[in-house]
Amino acid sequence: MTERIIIDTDPGIDDSMAILLALASPEVSLEGLTVVHGNCTAAQGTRNALAVLELAGAGNIPVAKGCDLPLVQPSLLAPETHGDTGLGYARLPEAAQPPLRQHAVDFLIERLLAEPGEYTLVAVGPLTNLAMAIRREPKIIPAIKRVISMGGAIRHQGNTTPLAEFNVYVDPHAAHIVYHSGVPFTLVPLDVTYHCILTRADVGRLLKVPSPVPRFVHDTTRFYMDFHDANQKIDGCVINDALALALVFAPQLCDFEEHYVDVDIQGGVSMGKTFADFYRMTGKPANMKVALGVRARDFLDLFVERIENLSRAVPG
Amino acid sequence: MTERIIIDTDPGIDDSMAILLALASPEVSLEGLTVVHGNCTAAQGTRNALAVLELAGAGNIPVAKGCDLPLVQPSLLAPETHGDTGLGYARLPEAAQPPLRQHAVDFLIERLLAEPGEYTLVAVGPLTNLAMAIRREPKIIPAIKRVISMGGAIRHQGNTTPLAEFNVYVDPHAAHIVYHSGVPFTLVPLDVTYHCILTRADVGRLLKVPSPVPRFVHDTTRFYMDFHDANQKIDGCVINDALALALVFAPQLCDFEEHYVDVDIQGGVSMGKTFADFYRMTGKPANMKVALGVRARDFLDLFVERIENLSRAVPG
Amino acid sequence: MTERIIIDTDPGIDDSMAILLALASPEVSLEGLTVVHGNCTAAQGTRNALAVLELAGAGNIPVAKGCDLPLVQPSLLAPETHGDTGLGYARLPEAAQPPLRQHAVDFLIERLLAEPGEYTLVAVGPLTNLAMAIRREPKIIPAIKRVISMGGAIRHQGNTTPLAEFNVYVDPHAAHIVYHSGVPFTLVPLDVTYHCILTRADVGRLLKVPSPVPRFVHDTTRFYMDFHDANQKIDGCVINDALALALVFAPQLCDFEEHYVDVDIQGGVSMGKTFADFYRMTGKPANMKVALGVRARDFLDLFVERIENLSRAVPG
Amino acid sequence: MTERIIIDTDPGIDDSMAILLALASPEVSLEGLTVVHGNCTAAQGTRNALAVLELAGAGNIPVAKGCDLPLVQPSLLAPETHGDTGLGYARLPEAAQPPLRQHAVDFLIERLLAEPGEYTLVAVGPLTNLAMAIRREPKIIPAIKRVISMGGAIRHQGNTTPLAEFNVYVDPHAAHIVYHSGVPFTLVPLDVTYHCILTRADVGRLLKVPSPVPRFVHDTTRFYMDFHDANQKIDGCVINDALALALVFAPQLCDFEEHYVDVDIQGGVSMGKTFADFYRMTGKPANMKVALGVRARDFLDLFVERIENLSRAVPG
Repeated sequence: MTERIIIDTDPGIDDSMAILLALASPEVSLEGLTVVHGNCTAAQGTRNALAVLELAGAGNIPVAKGCDLPLVQPSLLAPETHGDTGLGYARLPEAAQPPLRQHAVDFLIERLLAEPGEYTLVAVGPLTNLAMAIRREPKIIPAIKRVISMGGAIRHQGNTTPLAEFNVYVDPHAAHIVYHSGVPFTLVPLDVTYHCILTRADVGRLLKVPSPVPRFVHDTTRFYMDFHDANQKIDGCVINDALALALVFAPQLCDFEEHYVDVDIQGGVSMGKTFADFYRMTGKPANMKVALGVRARDFLDLFVERIENLSRAVPG
Repeated sequence: MTERIIIDTDPGIDDSMAILLALASPEVSLEGLTVVHGNCTAAQGTRNALAVLELAGAGNIPVAKGCDLPLVQPSLLAPETHGDTGLGYARLPEAAQPPLRQHAVDFLIERLLAEPGEYTLVAVGPLTNLAMAIRREPKIIPAIKRVISMGGAIRHQGNTTPLAEFNVYVDPHAAHIVYHSGVPFTLVPLDVTYHCILTRADVGRLLKVPSPVPRFVHDTTRFYMDFHDANQKIDGCVINDALALALVFAPQLCDFEEHYVDVDIQGGVSMGKTFADFYRMTGKPANMKVALGVRARDFLDLFVERIENLSRAVPG
Repeated sequence: MTERIIIDTDPGIDDSMAILLALASPEVSLEGLTVVHGNCTAAQGTRNALAVLELAGAGNIPVAKGCDLPLVQPSLLAPETHGDTGLGYARLPEAAQPPLRQHAVDFLIERLLAEPGEYTLVAVGPLTNLAMAIRREPKIIPAIKRVISMGGAIRHQGNTTPLAEFNVYVDPHAAHIVYHSGVPFTLVPLDVTYHCILTRADVGRLLKVPSPVPRFVHDTTRFYMDFHDANQKIDGCVINDALALALVFAPQLCDFEEHYVDVDIQGGVSMGKTFADFYRMTGKPANMKVALGVRARDFLDLFVERIENLSRAVPG
Repeated sequence: MTERIIIDTDPGIDDSMAILLALASPEVSLEGLTVVHGNCTAAQGTRNALAVLELAGAGNIPVAKGCDLPLVQPSLLAPETHGDTGLGYARLPEAAQPPLRQHAVDFLIERLLAEPGEYTLVAVGPLTNLAMAIRREPKIIPAIKRVISMGGAIRHQGNTTPLAEFNVYVDPHAAHIVYHSGVPFTLVPLDVTYHCILTRADVGRLLKVPSPVPRFVHDTTRFYMDFHDANQKIDGCVINDALALALVFAPQLCDFEEHYVDVDIQGGVSMGKTFADFYRMTGKPANMKVALGVRARDFLDLFVERIENLSRAVPG
């Protein structure tokens, strides 16, 4: 039985990898993308989402543009990590398909209320769209099957400030709303994603399949690899979002613990810091599952294999 | 020429006074109420709004229920100030008219985009609805004629914490969003409203008109007077929201200054504190007009006179 | 009976006025100055204190240099308000008397423990010295007769940030320590001092006495007047610290209320904000007296008269 | 050549282990103990320090009582971790030797200025004493050879709040002062100490030597073991402070990195969180060495062996 998913995303290099992995995975049925500010503007991300779908022959999947600003914080985009267009060195043609006229928040509310209990949301950008939907229509809370969210840094250092991960730092108030909303929630933090390093060898293997998909993977990740090399001395690139997607159907890739997790929204040096109450000091019940261990090579092999298969289906 | 207004409100005793004053004032055309959590729940406030309209023979004015939770903070209602139903000792019959099926946020967006530049919003509750609308559809920002907002305490002490006024404290993040949104904005803080004390004598004068309206004013404000007497040693009751409404058509009641005004959203003892940069220390340009002086007796006379007129039009 | 006082000070233009007023007032016996960073460095302030004492023929009064840094915050001096030397345009000769070898914190502890219940501290700079003394030797707490402290802005806007007064903003943690230490405490905030404007006419009257003292008052306050004129549109200059000194023997100049007063030390926009719990919302007992009303002209007349008398005693 | 050390301590169970290890180690010359609030009151900790020294035949080493309150935060002691007396189930006789009459802050200042460059401070409690000394006499900063400080939790969860370690949480402002003072500083955080678990077998091995020392170790650590077992599911007990002491002469036990490290002092959920800028995001230069890897078994073997030797020298 396939799992029906909507990806809430700010594509974004690793977002694109998550979208391709969804299209490459028979276990999931990708029924929509909602786009949010983050790695790039919502407008640019929407163009990217449509272009990536079309590249993989999935131009029919609906894409709704969402919020272009964080709830409270000033806007923070990431051109130094994802390039001016959000997709690194890749240059995809403008998609034929337009986005939905419906706003992402309304799309989420409508879909979730129309088919309660059906959708897994894979949220791989700042949580603004989801937080807005929850506050606008709290009835979606029991209607969401679950959220799998790439974000946060529990024990791992942050990638945006010493303590904060990008998706959470960009809209910590949104993360706070969603974490405490009661939605069944799985967090996929840097603690696991930073072990998942796509190497040049992996990309080289993909390139053996004659298809525009591997060429896109190559062009987009090369920018990311340059960034990681320069700033974090990582050889290869971390494809955070794709791991979150894989956990929809391959939970065995990670080890999970149930914890009370919160995010600092007070401003100052810890703004956006996510943390777990490992020793049950707060007396508060667990509000999520957190991935804290990962079989990184297994995931990367799965990723490469799936993208190979997808590439074969998209010759060129 | 009448001014077209929508009142965003959490009725609420002084909210009711604002609604009645709007209905009593030929200078304004009240075209809708949007209800928000605050003095009571959004559901209760919606019932109250409909009942007050009906009481005054205006049951045809649309009422849209809005957000029932602050954006980020936990819910904070005010039964000790406004009574269990939000209207003090008053007990109004359930209105015949139902609320709109449309959510307040959607109502605001639709109305504002349909007739750009037409509407003055008189916001007399926490700013959640308006903040949500602004983030959901930033195109409303240039479409709003202006916002007159009862809230904040600039030099005056707070009425909810030593530093914070209720409407702002309940949803400081919403206030932060709206204050910095670029919307033409007038703040009506406790600095002016706390001079506007409706006395028992004022209510006594109203009661001479045989009408259910003065009886409602009496029953609802008596609770408020008891509260003010017990907690703040004020003889009478402060009808904050009604002053904000009056400023739509009688700006001469107050003295205004243009300032950069901000609200503390960091948590801790100053959470929700509103302040003005009187000495231009921040280097930031003014983002609003603030009422800092008031001719209180003129306002109260205007209020009583108008309510007398309205009461005569609603015999009973 | 004279009141024995020690002035803890960062002289500073208005600090100098407080020192001169002490020397001019038979009701007080000035038994020492402890110097703290603030308007200028502790080293400069110590030189200034000695020079001002010598100017007024009181070079024998001991001066102890104290802390040169705030407890936790980075250093913040005020050359734009008090000039490069801390005394505006005045240029006093280096004093013959050296400072004590003892540190101000040790001087305070020794004096207070030696004569418990004897000393009133008039604290007109950041509270670093006093906070350090309290933490180093808590036994001084019951030994202090009382502290009269110029600092804070309760309802009045700040003079350093929109919310914070200089002395408190410079070392808010020290203020927090002292306010909550249990010491009998009187706060003299901007709410009263900003009504006490020494005018050019006042200085002109002083100058009629042939003495170096009025010439010093003229030279030092002229800088301050230029600052106030440029930044706060005040004609004349606010001699905050001198009011605090006057309250030692002339409490009738102000109206006082007893309140629970606290200071925000969380950082962010409200850092250093002082506030009173006027409505008893916190449930915490009053920890100080706060001057909230002032007969400003009475104070200024007293100040000018006293300085005239002092000047006559110091001919030249 | 022996290293001259002063231990600043709040004994405390693991503090006692550090004191004993110092006495057991010929590489160090223990020249004084300064006591601070923390695990117990300063008065109780002073009694404990004297009693532990006397137990080990070192009753001649000077002990100075220091600060009994954190700089700014309210007092927080740890009777649930260290027992009512601070030494778990151990009951030592009152020592014959009294403490110094000199305050710990003054003792530190005097010793450090008297022999600049001579002393390594091993700080295993909250940093109040050291912070006070630095602010009272900044000249000690270049006179301190180095500080080795047990405290903080960089990647590891906190042991007092989800994010904060006890010594730092109890006085975060003091930690902030010391970390940013310019003193050569080595941090020994929970990241390494929580691997150093003294087991019941280790204690059993010690008990084979007939001496009061192992009996004390047994009685005091048993309480700690019960605590760790109940709250953190650790079999044995973590002797944090003893590791910091060992690093004076056995740095090979740990792996160190140089980083900019800071502590959150803004209050709220992250109060007292220590963090390192691993990716050099802040642009600030490294201010300390941090122990991030440990050879725990090597340390424990060293500890047990040393305590065996000490015990043989103290028969009974």
